[in-house]
Amino acid sequence: MLGKFITIEGTEGVGKSTQIDLIKEYCKTNDINAVFTREPGGVKEAEKIRQIILDKDSKLHPLTELLMYLAARSEHLDRVVMPALRKGKTVFCDRFSDSTIAYQGYGRGLYPIQEFCTMIPQQFNLKIDLTLFLDLPPEESFKRKGGIDYGDRIEKEGLQFHERVYLGFKELALLKENQKRIVTIDASGEIKETHERIMGVLKERGVIQLVLK
Amino acid sequence: MLGKFITIEGTEGVGKSTQIDLIKEYCKTNDINAVFTREPGGVKEAEKIRQIILDKDSKLHPLTELLMYLAARSEHLDRVVMPALRKGKTVFCDRFSDSTIAYQGYGRGLYPIQEFCTMIPQQFNLKIDLTLFLDLPPEESFKRKGGIDYGDRIEKEGLQFHERVYLGFKELALLKENQKRIVTIDASGEIKETHERIMGVLKERGVIQLVLK
Repeated sequence: MLGKFITIEGTEGVGKSTQIDLIKEYCKTNDINAVFTREPGGVKEAEKIRQIILDKDSKLHPLTELLMYLAARSEHLDRVVMPALRKGKTVFCDRFSDSTIAYQGYGRGLYPIQEFCTMIPQQFNLKIDLTLFLDLPPEESFKRKGGIDYGDRIEKEGLQFHERVYLGFKELALLKENQKRIVTIDASGEIKETHERIMGVLKERGVIQLVLK
Repeated sequence: MLGKFITIEGTEGVGKSTQIDLIKEYCKTNDINAVFTREPGGVKEAEKIRQIILDKDSKLHPLTELLMYLAARSEHLDRVVMPALRKGKTVFCDRFSDSTIAYQGYGRGLYPIQEFCTMIPQQFNLKIDLTLFLDLPPEESFKRKGGIDYGDRIEKEGLQFHERVYLGFKELALLKENQKRIVTIDASGEIKETHERIMGVLKERGVIQLVLK
């Protein structure tokens, strides 16, 4: 039986990394056998693909950018995610298909890409068991971060771009077919509060119990 | 009005480059304003993508390989093919969607990818006006070439792989929806014979007249 596949989503600066570190710490303390990953996941070929995308001198057509993200995803699934799930491990993945739809679809204005995005996990017979969407409006998260990182081709996009991405996540969470999968987590409070909300969901959904060794 | 988009397809060593050179020469001599291209088409980002695919040390999942070919195609279309067609030029492209379906679909056993492959030109509102499929069984073309080039990750595949690719091209040419678009050219004879067959089709289909300045 495959392990559970959990994705964590949200706009820039929402505290995703901090929250993932806290889940990781919890799993370690409680001897829970989980894998934490993010694209490109240390896969050499996927790293090379991402380098081309994130190079701030690259001029990529939005469709090219999308296809390259999907290529990096395919390699990461094949080499990291699927092997771990096949061993029955729970896999937490920092960003996945919803980010692609939000960033490339809503952010870059590329429609319709849902079909493209869902075909990738389908080719691996993979379905997402749970998605945690950390919800914080971009103006709030940019305040937290103290501005925009201009060194990265995605981050240097203006606030309007990130507003569209945020709208994308919100709309995805509201879609009927996603209502069970995507859980919206209020990320406006203190780090500890958000962490407790996340742990509540993980326990309620049986993710934490399931991974107990 | 967009110019005509012509693709030239076939297995390795079938004489595609030689035939393309002869069409190019014909166009030059007759003052025909045509553009000759092939992916990655001198587009820096697409070149980088192809380098990752063709690196013989790369271990890519077939789906990753497919997505990267499509990414390189998207960039080539945006930067080379579409601008030329918009100027009303006839564009001859060395390999296109049919190669992807034949190599990645039939060769690598990835199904179904037709949908993926046709979505790329669709995003640019591009349709192929004519495809010349140079037909020669792989055992014949490898004899011509004097063997396989082991320096290239695609070419070093065995004869069986190229037989599957050949079957792919043959089946594509037989599909009802492709019967008007794909013209099969017997490439088993002398270079001159094949060239005459090609020029016959180009004239018959009005490609040559259309591009006369």
